[in-house]
Amino acid sequence: MAEQNDNKVTKIVGKQSILFANAPYILSGSSIAGKKEGDGPLGSFFDQIEEDPMCGGTTWEDAESRFMKRAAELAIEKAGLKSEDIRFLVGGDLLGQLIATSFGIVDLNIPIFGIYGACSTMGESMALGAMIIDGGYADKVVALTSSHFAGAEKQFRFPLAYGNQRPLSASWTVTGSGAVVIGSEKPAAKAKQNSADNGSIRIKGITVGKIVDYGLKDSMNMGACMAPAAYNTISQNLKDFNILPNYYDKIITGDLGYVGKDILIDLLKQDGFDISANHMDCGIEIFNKDIQDTHAGGSGCACSAITLTGYIFQKLRRHEWTRVLFVPTGALLSQVSFNEGNSVPGIAHGVVIEVS
Amino acid sequence: MAEQNDNKVTKIVGKQSILFANAPYILSGSSIAGKKEGDGPLGSFFDQIEEDPMCGGTTWEDAESRFMKRAAELAIEKAGLKSEDIRFLVGGDLLGQLIATSFGIVDLNIPIFGIYGACSTMGESMALGAMIIDGGYADKVVALTSSHFAGAEKQFRFPLAYGNQRPLSASWTVTGSGAVVIGSEKPAAKAKQNSADNGSIRIKGITVGKIVDYGLKDSMNMGACMAPAAYNTISQNLKDFNILPNYYDKIITGDLGYVGKDILIDLLKQDGFDISANHMDCGIEIFNKDIQDTHAGGSGCACSAITLTGYIFQKLRRHEWTRVLFVPTGALLSQVSFNEGNSVPGIAHGVVIEVS
Repeated sequence: MAEQNDNKVTKIVGKQSILFANAPYILSGSSIAGKKEGDGPLGSFFDQIEEDPMCGGTTWEDAESRFMKRAAELAIEKAGLKSEDIRFLVGGDLLGQLIATSFGIVDLNIPIFGIYGACSTMGESMALGAMIIDGGYADKVVALTSSHFAGAEKQFRFPLAYGNQRPLSASWTVTGSGAVVIGSEKPAAKAKQNSADNGSIRIKGITVGKIVDYGLKDSMNMGACMAPAAYNTISQNLKDFNILPNYYDKIITGDLGYVGKDILIDLLKQDGFDISANHMDCGIEIFNKDIQDTHAGGSGCACSAITLTGYIFQKLRRHEWTRVLFVPTGALLSQVSFNEGNSVPGIAHGVVIEVS
Repeated sequence: MAEQNDNKVTKIVGKQSILFANAPYILSGSSIAGKKEGDGPLGSFFDQIEEDPMCGGTTWEDAESRFMKRAAELAIEKAGLKSEDIRFLVGGDLLGQLIATSFGIVDLNIPIFGIYGACSTMGESMALGAMIIDGGYADKVVALTSSHFAGAEKQFRFPLAYGNQRPLSASWTVTGSGAVVIGSEKPAAKAKQNSADNGSIRIKGITVGKIVDYGLKDSMNMGACMAPAAYNTISQNLKDFNILPNYYDKIITGDLGYVGKDILIDLLKQDGFDISANHMDCGIEIFNKDIQDTHAGGSGCACSAITLTGYIFQKLRRHEWTRVLFVPTGALLSQVSFNEGNSVPGIAHGVVIEVS
């Protein structure tokens, strides 16, 4: 892949991928996590643990907006920047009409591209953000997303007060928000000091996801619904860039959980790709299922977002990993589509992140 | 603006705008309209009028998906292309979690960036689509959106069967879908014959919108809620490009309606810009309020989308207009945010479209 990158003209790679001529830099990342996430195995990696599920707000939606605002402000601060230095935001959330995002970022006064990719949103926002930077349309953008357990339960299933039982295949929506500042140039030494991030983490390429529908209808088993989309994106990434799974130190899906992980590995074997040795799923890593009662694993836009900004970036900064394929996965359903008996299609966007 | 375009490097213009180094071409546009829209003043301009509000489907959401699928397929066909020629889709709709889009385009098997900008979605999708083309990440993309009167009423207000009364400031959500094929090169002569479009319509630049919240809370008066966002985007477009309103033959907002139009014109006068002579609002044009009972005008993502692809493109092809600023306007609310007493912020994305 490195050799192809020497060609400054060809950005279109294979069927669904892009190789950046001037791979954008990750200037900083922020991770604001809820209490349960802070109690989980990755707790020590997050920038902030917010103990109050309302985050000082008055509704679940307001709380999520506050998480997102804090994530955006912290990422900008860690990069040694001010909000007026950020040309565009690219972001979204799980709630209908993106209200967590709208009310979360309005005070930042930055032009925004609102996006929706369900729990694949962090991948979509980083993919678009990297194109905006590499294309010369901005020198600094923020890609961000959020989710909230209580807001998501109310939006997609039942209000918490209803006390609905959850099957073992159900996942637990992560409460939190992650933001990434993407820039065209390596950060200055000063910014590096202020930030925990090493400026040499770059977005080398992306693989844009298709909507994949295997006809599954169980909104309580989203891992199975999303696995075919993750399979499509990962398989296409490997084919487009003509590489094998071991090119990456880790191939990291968003929130397939225990059920989806097995399906993904099986599906990729059909194409001759074995990722069992280097696959990781953020939904599996973020909670301890034995003591946190989180069933199939974590989910939600923030699951992959804060695992990326908290945990994965640290692994890259320490050069424990040097190349990862980050593949957040989204289940495309709404309360209406579910109640009308529709299937739950999936989508997954791949982001190639490397450190040098 | 033309002079600036000779500079192939500087794409960043002013605070919120981009000037494309290689202005992308509009290869085709399609407009699928509902019956009421077909009965309106612009009826003769639309490609297809679908008399069945269900579009052969079983639910309002399914109907909207069918409108969108038809718009996508027709735009691709009019450009003389097949779906496998389209590298990416950029699109979204008004429904929670974009279900009209997800189920509408899944069969096209094209990688997609799902976006949400409320009724500004056509502007956002064309802005991102043009960046993807100008940046060299694709040679052909489709930007598209849809809305449906009955689906939107159910989503944002009350199901139709409830028979809710509508105040005079309320707008009427347009049923339909519009799609645009954007390409890096002028279409071949053959495609021109098949298509009604002249290949010399190009996207010269964009102005990305901020979320603007004046604190208005009336979801039945969305024109007033969105006017400040349209004001911000139009004023910034004129400042960023250092032009006066008469640079454009038309400055075209999406769905401000009669109430919002007056507010917009007043707000722009504060900045010394008088657009009263060349302003047009798609929501005002699309219905005849005296005989169609549509109160403040049309709204919904499809309002500006089909007015663009049906009417505005024809004006440009005939060179009756040569430069327009297309500014779809979105009201950022959900049923939840409204019921929780939140304000209704607005957003507007500007697209500079010129014919040569």
